[in-house]
Amino acid sequence: MSQVRVHNFAVSLDGFGAGEGQSMEAPFGHAQGRLMEWFFGTRTFQAMHGKGGGGAGVDEALASNWGPGIGAEIMGRNKFGPQRGAWTDDEWKGWWGDNPVFHTPVFVLTHHPRPSIEMEGGTTFHFVDAGPAEALAMARDAANGLDVRIGGGVATVRQFLAADLIDHMHIALVPIVLGRGERLWDGLEGLDERFTIESVTTPSGVTHLTFTHK
Amino acid sequence: MSQVRVHNFAVSLDGFGAGEGQSMEAPFGHAQGRLMEWFFGTRTFQAMHGKGGGGAGVDEALASNWGPGIGAEIMGRNKFGPQRGAWTDDEWKGWWGDNPVFHTPVFVLTHHPRPSIEMEGGTTFHFVDAGPAEALAMARDAANGLDVRIGGGVATVRQFLAADLIDHMHIALVPIVLGRGERLWDGLEGLDERFTIESVTTPSGVTHLTFTHK
Repeated sequence: MSQVRVHNFAVSLDGFGAGEGQSMEAPFGHAQGRLMEWFFGTRTFQAMHGKGGGGAGVDEALASNWGPGIGAEIMGRNKFGPQRGAWTDDEWKGWWGDNPVFHTPVFVLTHHPRPSIEMEGGTTFHFVDAGPAEALAMARDAANGLDVRIGGGVATVRQFLAADLIDHMHIALVPIVLGRGERLWDGLEGLDERFTIESVTTPSGVTHLTFTHK
Repeated sequence: MSQVRVHNFAVSLDGFGAGEGQSMEAPFGHAQGRLMEWFFGTRTFQAMHGKGGGGAGVDEALASNWGPGIGAEIMGRNKFGPQRGAWTDDEWKGWWGDNPVFHTPVFVLTHHPRPSIEMEGGTTFHFVDAGPAEALAMARDAANGLDVRIGGGVATVRQFLAADLIDHMHIALVPIVLGRGERLWDGLEGLDERFTIESVTTPSGVTHLTFTHK
């Protein structure tokens, strides 16, 4: 059975996976880039943006697991873009340019379905009004036996955790106190009992936690 | 100038320093012992309870810093005991037996002052109705040039952090999701900017974070 995986998902010490005030200019709200600084320095991030270089240390080892073996992604609408409600800007095709980093089908959860958007490089955005289990069935079908990545944002990961649909999750705990934003852990009391959890701290100051479903 | 220090203060992944439902039988509420398991295994904890043995690893290295150089402790009333409001049980002398582990003056913050209680082994509990700065002045005076430990509970540590009175803080981040209880980080947005933060993960699964004031 293909696995359902979360990678490179950063949270603050106070459990926020995004700040307050998400917008076109600030996809993480007032958190800005602070949750992802450890990631910006990795080879994986640099390669995603067509650049060479970047660190090859433990941050990279974790970050690089993002891609291999993945056949589809599921993301929440808030990760796709800052629009809310009915789609008013049909030109918006995500934050990732003409050739997005995914290179697989991507299922965007929304209560406002619209036609799929085929991009360069193998990424197709499908817009589906579906609960976690139904969306996962569609993504599994599209993934051809490969794994499905739950790409975020915060509410989407939380929803899949609550439904106990995640097999493996990588959290990067960033030692900052955001104070406000979207909380990852709300409603997930006892989550740790369902997973084997390992932790490692790296020189960037981040603590990586891996959750492997028991 | 003597330092103001926090040691061995455990929080969950979702930022709770204690669970819900604190009582005589459950000082950490529904969290029970889960926040302190890493600590129970250390030599420091075993010695506090008159026993030999215990681990001498990195958990112990952090835990053992609790005592040396401390001349007084400040604690909140909720750490002293489960009573709330006016004191009704004058026999209650804390959780720590006739010879408490502190061996210094201990200032208990309460809106209901009462006579001091002198215990065996150098611990005297003073009950003071004072804000953080005023309590700290009293504790510094009693500490004779040594450092002052802020002993908890959650609200007390948060209050001293909000007043920017803490020089050094050791947090043990325990990878559990408590779901409810007392949050340490509330109201402390940007706290990380005031401190140099280091992290280390140990085989017990805990991540120790040290905060050193810039």
